Amino acid sequence: MKCHLLLWLSMAFASPTDNDVIIDYLTTGAGKGQAWNRLANMTDVIGHRLCGSTDFIRGATYMLQQLSNDGLSNVHGENAMVPQWNRGKEYVIMRSPRVNQTVMMLGLGGSVSTPPGGITAEVLVVQSFDELKARASEAKGKIVLFNQQCDWVAKPTACYGETGAYRVNGPSAAARVGAVAMLVRSLASSDKSSLPHTGMMIYDTDAPKIPCAAVTVEDAEAMDRMQSKKLKIVLNLYMEAQTLAPVPQPNVIAELPGTDKRDEIVVVSGHLDSWDVGVGAMDDGGGAFVSWQVLSTFKALGLQPRRTIRVIMWACEEFGGIGADSYFNDHKADELAKMQLVMESDMGTFTPYGIGFSGSAAATAIMKNIVSQLAPINASTLISGGAETDNGPWCSAGAPCGTLANRNQDYFKYHHSHGDQMTVQDSTAMDLAAATIAVTVWNVANLDQMLPR
Amino acid sequence: MKCHLLLWLSMAFASPTDNDVIIDYLTTGAGKGQAWNRLANMTDVIGHRLCGSTDFIRGATYMLQQLSNDGLSNVHGENAMVPQWNRGKEYVIMRSPRVNQTVMMLGLGGSVSTPPGGITAEVLVVQSFDELKARASEAKGKIVLFNQQCDWVAKPTACYGETGAYRVNGPSAAARVGAVAMLVRSLASSDKSSLPHTGMMIYDTDAPKIPCAAVTVEDAEAMDRMQSKKLKIVLNLYMEAQTLAPVPQPNVIAELPGTDKRDEIVVVSGHLDSWDVGVGAMDDGGGAFVSWQVLSTFKALGLQPRRTIRVIMWACEEFGGIGADSYFNDHKADELAKMQLVMESDMGTFTPYGIGFSGSAAATAIMKNIVSQLAPINASTLISGGAETDNGPWCSAGAPCGTLANRNQDYFKYHHSHGDQMTVQDSTAMDLAAATIAVTVWNVANLDQMLPR
Repeated sequence: MKCHLLLWLSMAFASPTDNDVIIDYLTTGAGKGQAWNRLANMTDVIGHRLCGSTDFIRGATYMLQQLSNDGLSNVHGENAMVPQWNRGKEYVIMRSPRVNQTVMMLGLGGSVSTPPGGITAEVLVVQSFDELKARASEAKGKIVLFNQQCDWVAKPTACYGETGAYRVNGPSAAARVGAVAMLVRSLASSDKSSLPHTGMMIYDTDAPKIPCAAVTVEDAEAMDRMQSKKLKIVLNLYMEAQTLAPVPQPNVIAELPGTDKRDEIVVVSGHLDSWDVGVGAMDDGGGAFVSWQVLSTFKALGLQPRRTIRVIMWACEEFGGIGADSYFNDHKADELAKMQLVMESDMGTFTPYGIGFSGSAAATAIMKNIVSQLAPINASTLISGGAETDNGPWCSAGAPCGTLANRNQDYFKYHHSHGDQMTVQDSTAMDLAAATIAVTVWNVANLDQMLPR
Repeated sequence: MKCHLLLWLSMAFASPTDNDVIIDYLTTGAGKGQAWNRLANMTDVIGHRLCGSTDFIRGATYMLQQLSNDGLSNVHGENAMVPQWNRGKEYVIMRSPRVNQTVMMLGLGGSVSTPPGGITAEVLVVQSFDELKARASEAKGKIVLFNQQCDWVAKPTACYGETGAYRVNGPSAAARVGAVAMLVRSLASSDKSSLPHTGMMIYDTDAPKIPCAAVTVEDAEAMDRMQSKKLKIVLNLYMEAQTLAPVPQPNVIAELPGTDKRDEIVVVSGHLDSWDVGVGAMDDGGGAFVSWQVLSTFKALGLQPRRTIRVIMWACEEFGGIGADSYFNDHKADELAKMQLVMESDMGTFTPYGIGFSGSAAATAIMKNIVSQLAPINASTLISGGAETDNGPWCSAGAPCGTLANRNQDYFKYHHSHGDQMTVQDSTAMDLAAATIAVTVWNVANLDQMLPR
């Protein structure tokens, strides 16, 4: 085993010259600033790209053209059937204790509408599912507001995981105890921005479907205070949200064909869809565009990888990795054994510090040595964990998976909100993110053998 | 003169015991947290308080009750005639290059409405009045967007002064060259919050009145990029804004009567009105409530000042100090000579570092010594400049004026936006702000003589 490992390690190092050339191209050469500028070009003309919307179709059409213009190969879309949810007009007005003042909100993706006249009801604020259970008798006919707490400053990503259930499953939990609507404190750091943060939710089949929306951290705290002062809180919630029939929308794909191992594949990816607020520059324009930049860089430099490198800009991540699931189902039979590495970047493209990886111990050792070559740009750390939503099916099926490890502590300030704009993205950070993935992918694509599973 | 100054200095020091008692009460005693809690109580039930609105009337009624409950004297309102501007429904939708995507906006205070169908027109982005002049021939029939630049991180307060003319006078400047509407980049630091920031504007009498609104820093930058790429920008602007007849609304006033010099007055003040977004916790709930806290503290401690201390919560600061102007006109004949000091706090109640002061050199020397007594709470700096909007008329007429010097570098992140919530206010900072003003006012109110003008 030791001997086996050493053999791998000796092969894990590609020419240092290639690494240098890639990094130089992206940080000081013709590729410098390209990812940010291309992303700005796309978001400026397309804006946000909600799954199922014509905005997404415009975005996909635009991307297919751009990838072709960039000289990449096999540029095409592969359709998935995706849900079509329309927000429509929506608002919350506080009737009491404030008198007819607007409360900032965003309906949750998948929510039903209110009745035509809206819902006017008293609010019950709870901090947890447990508290809702304990106060179930008070919830009937009310709007339940989940004001779940988490230390988002200390552990933003962990908080998103810990509190996500309130947004996703809160509506049915509230409906089961007789609530007429559900509001959730935005899954976001309390950054004082007063932005609501949307996201998907899922109705359980055994509960009535009630309308649901996110309010700001600030307003959730205010209503919690009001309740603790025994003030009667009455809101008028109005939502026209509706779900139409699923429609086909494409994962957008392009390749840089490999040479002697062209049947084997390294995937770099991010998702093209976004929420219907902001412009989806961070979530996940950044991830999708640094992924493209990897192929674009090799193409521009005339670097031909041994394995085929494929960029995928996924459709409909935001409603649960629907484009990616469809792609996995279509390709697993032919390609699972040939997947050398499936990269996804959907947790920000802020300044990178390395790569997250999920794979066998032997593969991890190889990856560690590859990533160590990123020391010149301070991105040489290999951390555990490379699975995200869209590469997840491949990871679960045993393929090695990777993601960008980046300084994304501000990610949930902007995530799923109007704040997801080009101003969040830093051009230098995107160059470094592209370089981090590019060097990793270049070395992985050129290994003599497949990463051991 | 030297002798005269020394005489003053010797009298400028009140009992150190009083200072300690005041500071202790507010930072560790029964007054700790009181200002924040009271402000939360008010904003929770009243919310924002636009000049001319019923919200303001509810706020003023609430405050009169609270000041009475606090045992203060001479609690009353003094009406001013104030404008009544209603925002109504409003939106901006981008038709090109993005297709039917909402642009975050807030109409400017005082703006007229669009025609019933809204205005759909091409956008001309300019960086300055000079550029508008140079491109005047291009502006006809367009929506002019001022994308004025300033280094808000380095000098937020200076930037507000330097760029304010674009919001206030931009509409008429644009109308004069044939524009059909005006948009302005929000007067705010580019904090990536994607919040529009409203504020007042003034129509010149010699220009057509065109509708006007603020867009976010982020969208102004995006539209500037679009124009630089020769993309045609078309917006649909819809605003129902209207100005109704002026109405009487009160400045809210209470006093702590003086003893042997009760005819002489020290004013502490902030404004009670706010914009119709957020809850006006920072602008200027904080200033108004730390001002109340000063009197409340003396009352609770049984401290009787020699001069009368008057708290004023001004009406309609946001449309140009209208309540304050009215008050000055009503009181100047009787009280100008008797005004010992007119304090206003309308630039935040973040952690204080001292007092801003406008007055004669002799008065400044006295104030310097008084403020030096705030060393125990690190607020002993006297800076030049104590005039703001509402104490301005008194300062111009020669009365000594003061303001709170505080670490307000984030002020323009929240100012005039949905972000102006209780979360911006820090309870400890408010206690220290109240202590800073209270110690200053206590010493000034007890001087043997009037501050020399």
